[in-house]
Amino acid sequence: MRAICLVSGGMDSCVTVAEAVAAHHEIFLLHINYGQRTEKRELKAFQDIATYYSVPASRIMCSSIQHLSAIGGSSLTDSAIPVQKADLDSEHIPTSYVPFRNAHLLSIAVSWAEVCGATEVYIGAVHEDSSGYPDCRPEYYEAFNQVIKLGTASGSIHIVTPIINLTKDQIVRRGLELGAPLDLTWSCYQNEQEACGVCDSCALRLRGFKHAGVTDPLPYVSRPDY
Amino acid sequence: MRAICLVSGGMDSCVTVAEAVAAHHEIFLLHINYGQRTEKRELKAFQDIATYYSVPASRIMCSSIQHLSAIGGSSLTDSAIPVQKADLDSEHIPTSYVPFRNAHLLSIAVSWAEVCGATEVYIGAVHEDSSGYPDCRPEYYEAFNQVIKLGTASGSIHIVTPIINLTKDQIVRRGLELGAPLDLTWSCYQNEQEACGVCDSCALRLRGFKHAGVTDPLPYVSRPDY
Repeated sequence: MRAICLVSGGMDSCVTVAEAVAAHHEIFLLHINYGQRTEKRELKAFQDIATYYSVPASRIMCSSIQHLSAIGGSSLTDSAIPVQKADLDSEHIPTSYVPFRNAHLLSIAVSWAEVCGATEVYIGAVHEDSSGYPDCRPEYYEAFNQVIKLGTASGSIHIVTPIINLTKDQIVRRGLELGAPLDLTWSCYQNEQEACGVCDSCALRLRGFKHAGVTDPLPYVSRPDY
Repeated sequence: MRAICLVSGGMDSCVTVAEAVAAHHEIFLLHINYGQRTEKRELKAFQDIATYYSVPASRIMCSSIQHLSAIGGSSLTDSAIPVQKADLDSEHIPTSYVPFRNAHLLSIAVSWAEVCGATEVYIGAVHEDSSGYPDCRPEYYEAFNQVIKLGTASGSIHIVTPIINLTKDQIVRRGLELGAPLDLTWSCYQNEQEACGVCDSCALRLRGFKHAGVTDPLPYVSRPDY
């Protein structure tokens, strides 16, 4: 069966691809440039992951959308809003939240799925051990599946979130178990050469590797002890 | 209260704007170019409607997305697929169905709503007297409202579909009652100078005007009797 995989180029999406491969799907990789700061580096990671899994060009789509950065409201898409240092204990939604972002990504994936005949859309959303974005909760995906069921011609596409209930260290372990190329991924929200080590995304990643007892292969400006 | 109105430039979206105005909302108009055949003419209709309602530039957004035409699968976005002649009695989804289109439009509207503080998103979806697109059903919008509730920071934005249960003649009458500028709108899927009169959208429109006992002010190549 065919599966669309949404791939930012980060660790979570890479392990999600590995899960789709392990489930014996014919994978179609979709990367979306929505004006995020580190897009250039993320795109390289995406391409490296596609090459690693030998995905042919006919099953790769890179799409650019302008409206999320035009709308702004997030430190990821608006250079006037600085990227915050991580506060993993905060219960507030961080400034890196891009308003309703995942609905845009899923919509593109579902439209492509309808046309290419895929029945699954894989996304590497993480709930528990995450920044607290509202559109990463399991119930959000259940609701979106209902929208797909009602709003498509086939009604038979559904979203798969294989790592949504894993902690970051479990994601690292699962990635290594599946042979996912974690060294090719990029997670930092701030930098494109050496990961900053202090944004939310770096903090969550570094803590995950630490708890998994593994050294993160990426270069970091600093590696605080989370 | 602020309301985002999705405006294609067709009759349905124009009457929907009139409903938002009648509800005393501060209206924000959103037009989306997704590669549809008649975009140039639709954009003019959109701009004319915005001018008619004296909406300032700060509350207007025109957004372009490439992925729906890249994905294809519809006669509206893929020039290799001809626009069918209307068959208003058919129970099949017509070739003008753009896969999962409305989810893209709603996602952009909801992201803008989150940032500009709007609590309503108006869309001129029509269910009963329509082409039979799956993403025009009331239950689809109920499901999407659930996605918005779970997937946004505020959780307080909702979709309003004021004409979803009206027939086309009721839409014409309601538009005239509210002073909506139906003469400025454009509905044809095929042409940009004179409406073709034979595509699904023309057929539904012409039948609506006929049943309302009013002459459609637009120029037509032909006006079959539906």
